[in-house]
Amino acid sequence: MQRRLPESGATRTFDPAPLNGAGELAYAWARDLFPINRSLTGPGVRQTLAYLARLLPPLQIHAVASGTKAFDWTVPQEWDIAEGFLEDEHGRRVIDFAESNLHIVGYSTPIDTWLTLEELEPHLYSLPDQPDAVPYVTSYYEPRWGFCLAHRVRKTLVPGRYHAVIRARHFNGVLNYADMILPGETAEQILLSTYVCHPSMANNELSGPVVTAALGRWLLSLPRRRYTYRLVFAPETIGAIVYLSRNLDRLKDKVRAGFVLSCVGDDRGYSYIASRQSNSLADRAARHVLAHHAPGFTAYSFLERGSDERQYCSPGADLPVCSVLRTRHGRYPEYHTSLDDLSLISPAGLQGAVDIYAKIVWLLENNRRWRTRLPGEPQLGRLGLYPTLSRRGSSAEARPLRNFLAYADGTLDLIDVADTIGVDALGLLGAIGTLEDAGIVVQTEG
Amino acid sequence: MQRRLPESGATRTFDPAPLNGAGELAYAWARDLFPINRSLTGPGVRQTLAYLARLLPPLQIHAVASGTKAFDWTVPQEWDIAEGFLEDEHGRRVIDFAESNLHIVGYSTPIDTWLTLEELEPHLYSLPDQPDAVPYVTSYYEPRWGFCLAHRVRKTLVPGRYHAVIRARHFNGVLNYADMILPGETAEQILLSTYVCHPSMANNELSGPVVTAALGRWLLSLPRRRYTYRLVFAPETIGAIVYLSRNLDRLKDKVRAGFVLSCVGDDRGYSYIASRQSNSLADRAARHVLAHHAPGFTAYSFLERGSDERQYCSPGADLPVCSVLRTRHGRYPEYHTSLDDLSLISPAGLQGAVDIYAKIVWLLENNRRWRTRLPGEPQLGRLGLYPTLSRRGSSAEARPLRNFLAYADGTLDLIDVADTIGVDALGLLGAIGTLEDAGIVVQTEG
Amino acid sequence: MQRRLPESGATRTFDPAPLNGAGELAYAWARDLFPINRSLTGPGVRQTLAYLARLLPPLQIHAVASGTKAFDWTVPQEWDIAEGFLEDEHGRRVIDFAESNLHIVGYSTPIDTWLTLEELEPHLYSLPDQPDAVPYVTSYYEPRWGFCLAHRVRKTLVPGRYHAVIRARHFNGVLNYADMILPGETAEQILLSTYVCHPSMANNELSGPVVTAALGRWLLSLPRRRYTYRLVFAPETIGAIVYLSRNLDRLKDKVRAGFVLSCVGDDRGYSYIASRQSNSLADRAARHVLAHHAPGFTAYSFLERGSDERQYCSPGADLPVCSVLRTRHGRYPEYHTSLDDLSLISPAGLQGAVDIYAKIVWLLENNRRWRTRLPGEPQLGRLGLYPTLSRRGSSAEARPLRNFLAYADGTLDLIDVADTIGVDALGLLGAIGTLEDAGIVVQTEG
Repeated sequence: MQRRLPESGATRTFDPAPLNGAGELAYAWARDLFPINRSLTGPGVRQTLAYLARLLPPLQIHAVASGTKAFDWTVPQEWDIAEGFLEDEHGRRVIDFAESNLHIVGYSTPIDTWLTLEELEPHLYSLPDQPDAVPYVTSYYEPRWGFCLAHRVRKTLVPGRYHAVIRARHFNGVLNYADMILPGETAEQILLSTYVCHPSMANNELSGPVVTAALGRWLLSLPRRRYTYRLVFAPETIGAIVYLSRNLDRLKDKVRAGFVLSCVGDDRGYSYIASRQSNSLADRAARHVLAHHAPGFTAYSFLERGSDERQYCSPGADLPVCSVLRTRHGRYPEYHTSLDDLSLISPAGLQGAVDIYAKIVWLLENNRRWRTRLPGEPQLGRLGLYPTLSRRGSSAEARPLRNFLAYADGTLDLIDVADTIGVDALGLLGAIGTLEDAGIVVQTEG
Repeated sequence: MQRRLPESGATRTFDPAPLNGAGELAYAWARDLFPINRSLTGPGVRQTLAYLARLLPPLQIHAVASGTKAFDWTVPQEWDIAEGFLEDEHGRRVIDFAESNLHIVGYSTPIDTWLTLEELEPHLYSLPDQPDAVPYVTSYYEPRWGFCLAHRVRKTLVPGRYHAVIRARHFNGVLNYADMILPGETAEQILLSTYVCHPSMANNELSGPVVTAALGRWLLSLPRRRYTYRLVFAPETIGAIVYLSRNLDRLKDKVRAGFVLSCVGDDRGYSYIASRQSNSLADRAARHVLAHHAPGFTAYSFLERGSDERQYCSPGADLPVCSVLRTRHGRYPEYHTSLDDLSLISPAGLQGAVDIYAKIVWLLENNRRWRTRLPGEPQLGRLGLYPTLSRRGSSAEARPLRNFLAYADGTLDLIDVADTIGVDALGLLGAIGTLEDAGIVVQTEG
Repeated sequence: MQRRLPESGATRTFDPAPLNGAGELAYAWARDLFPINRSLTGPGVRQTLAYLARLLPPLQIHAVASGTKAFDWTVPQEWDIAEGFLEDEHGRRVIDFAESNLHIVGYSTPIDTWLTLEELEPHLYSLPDQPDAVPYVTSYYEPRWGFCLAHRVRKTLVPGRYHAVIRARHFNGVLNYADMILPGETAEQILLSTYVCHPSMANNELSGPVVTAALGRWLLSLPRRRYTYRLVFAPETIGAIVYLSRNLDRLKDKVRAGFVLSCVGDDRGYSYIASRQSNSLADRAARHVLAHHAPGFTAYSFLERGSDERQYCSPGADLPVCSVLRTRHGRYPEYHTSLDDLSLISPAGLQGAVDIYAKIVWLLENNRRWRTRLPGEPQLGRLGLYPTLSRRGSSAEARPLRNFLAYADGTLDLIDVADTIGVDALGLLGAIGTLEDAGIVVQTEG
């Protein structure tokens, strides 16, 4: 009798216990990381990656020199900002980088000059319809300087002269990112990618790195893994492009499913952004878990992508990478403003994302093809899986398992079968184990 | 000029005349068969098969010994029940098998004992929400004994002692089934399968065997048959499994379309249960005929299967077997109770099922691929198939035939073409014959 | 760096200027052609084709002898009518062919006889529900004679004797049609086909030949053409069949997309009739342009075809030929009556059809497959195609172009990509040109 492959780790029922408290922990990490002034490059990114490496010891931090070519892009100069402020004629600081790192346009060129309010205006960024929010503005690839401020404050500025000071420098340094490989029983990989380039904002972005770190620690704790896991922490866009350019063949060869973790900390709901392939293993697993564990989630097509899936799924890479999020970037009012702070995310919100991603991982780990060993329905009664007394309606409770068997033909994987029969795949794992033990079903290659 | 293959029997218009009276006849057979105590095995099945063999002389009755392995199953012992009753302290028979064979749980073990009402309760089966119905209960694969009774009667039982007697025996005997092969011009087969294991119930099950017998007699009467027909009468589940296990290669090699005939006797409507393949030739023919001749029929997916399509369509067999029914099992209140009696079925109900199945058979017999012999539309006017006077709207009546020709490309079969152009395929057969005779269309292999 | 193929003519933005005034011109041509008595054969067709050849000098006029076989058909005799009238006993002309060529049933046999009104009735055709309209009636393939008249006039006919005179002759002559080939950079062809066999009716049919002529003149004026264009003017049905029979292999080998131009002159709306293939290049281009430039157009399946797509798409030819129309034949009340006159069409109506067809042609000319040269998103900011200042919402305007790039994988053509991303393909051409010039995208074969 052919038996299940014992090294596969298949048909283990999902155990949520090891994830208890992950949300609280992740929230504490986010609180630590919040004040750091991250950007595409610079000390803030290094500080952040160093913190993450303490959580995930296998994490490797990499540096790429400014000016390095990466596909159509060039690694920008490093940016280091010492201080930035705007003072009025009376020396009163109207805006101060020391209060919030959102106050200075990202990658601002240095300036130290006096201007009239009128001359200053083109350098000020505020949001009239959100007067209390400081917007997040950057100018990575065009030299500019500017201040971001609450519109409420901006309206208090009176005509007069202002002293604009930004002590920053751009220089040939490095761009940093980090990755780690958790080996599994096969060389096939699951990619988890998140980004570290935004200053003090919580849902976008800190929820991404801390949820990824929590998942990484859980993966490290597993007694065995079918897949090899690749975790990536890199600045958005340019970091992902650099990462792709340095690992393209490896990624195309090995990655079976990937996910961009972003905006995974609030409590409002769940959403999903399809990969370019739209029906890849990653998409199928994500949609299946969301449908059964976060019904009502919002599904976005690849046309509404927004983060590093843009790079991973680009035609020349075309990796099976989708994204599962809480409220996605651009669809909540606090997005890219100072209002996206630690009050917007919560331990429960982070825990929810950790749980969903862990279930997706678990489904991938156990997503096998099974086939029944013999034609005909098996005699489930003798396994205690079917009532031995036949009366009207008595077969109803065994229906999910019988439907599983009806489609266990060795060509459909667990996700396909569970989608076909309309049940949660994770809920079938225990009974499938019983069927495997009894030799009713066997795993097939494919 | 290539001509239609004369031996094919194609393009004969469907003639309903030979089916007249089939419903009346089938009803009379059901009346004869109703009192017999059928079960998985035993004299009741043999008596039923013998009756059917008188209607269908080619029918072969087979016997398989108890204990024989069949895939995951073992043929059970034979069950023979002599009598069964429950008497109260005053010797009054509260329940008597002689009154209805539904009163004893199928495959009950023998018993002859006195019990209190309290001790008796776990052995009594009734339906509180259908107080007049005696439920149908079996326990084939777990030794049990029990009585089934109307809940109305059960409520009259007073505390006291009761004498429970079931004189039955289980012994190594045989399981019986019957089949017949009606040879056709090709070795390709159409399977009609029905079951004979339920005691006195009319829609489920006697309608199945009697409609199948009526169809068998009609098939015998046809001057020629393109397909070979295989008719099977076997106990449900274990019988179908035994049948499959003894004929698997033959069936997989030859069966092009199959149907499970069950619940084909009431007047309430029509329904259809898809095969596992869901778009097999059997499904396409069944849905086409139902759409045009029983509009409003209820379509069930394979997830809602219930009878021997469970075995025929199981992954290891995967035969193209669907089911066309009147009101399906489990979806009418009398199902699996004494209320499913001869008043629930009718000659008209049976006739309707015979007619639908005959049309399905006829469609299969004539389901050819045709192609037009020449490019361009043919000059239909000279065949009298198109008005020679052209005025506004004059082409409307010829539209179905012109649409047929527009899709007669030799790759689509008649069902595909008729579905594409939205007309009843059977209604096209006469005109297709004219087109064949005129050399406008020819049949293609495929 | 691979560059766009300069000889391809791709990525030129559509220029509507050369089409200005086409509608006025086409209307003038229709006015000239309106009085001519066209039929399947005869001097009216020749006069019409000669007029068109003056507009389109490359046009070749062909003649096929009566009695020539063409697939299932035979070229009919030529019909020439000198006069036709109905007079009452007082010599008053009740009906006169000289007033309208619709008054005589097309292909009427000659007659010169006196009849009673009762005897005359079977030879009279009128429309009770459109009492002012003279219907258009023909009897090409069955000898008949008849008069068509307004029902209002018919009701004035009093009992008495009438003199019916039709001086016509049928003789072995020729059937005429015309075609022209405009060579392009490749031998692959676009077919534009229209018909010339209806007497004085404007939307069906004169709009077809005059819009086709306008498009032909525009195509002649283009500095280069990727495709070779084949324009056909032939009597409907028999003309198309003759044309197919004489050019079948050429057409099957070379035609990549084709269109039947008919009913393209009124102002009421746009419609489309799918080819038999239903998703051919012609269909995809037509639907795409209509969706973006004539939203609300009516789409008909191939089941509702009506003109020469019946022949071009017939199973033995199966060319990718669809039809884009204004109000289609049979769906406007004036159809096939004297009310389909020059007041039903308009310069604006004709111009609209010319514009839509020119856009379809332009889309076909530029329907390439592009792929991005490098993985990852390109750095659009340096091309001025993306804002260099990143703030909330700043990426929205670049979204169509970024979506184009996300699907520019070398396998999807422009129509596929534009349909996928939901934008007008013609609107992308300018930016694609910029991307090609910058080496961001390159064309692929396929």
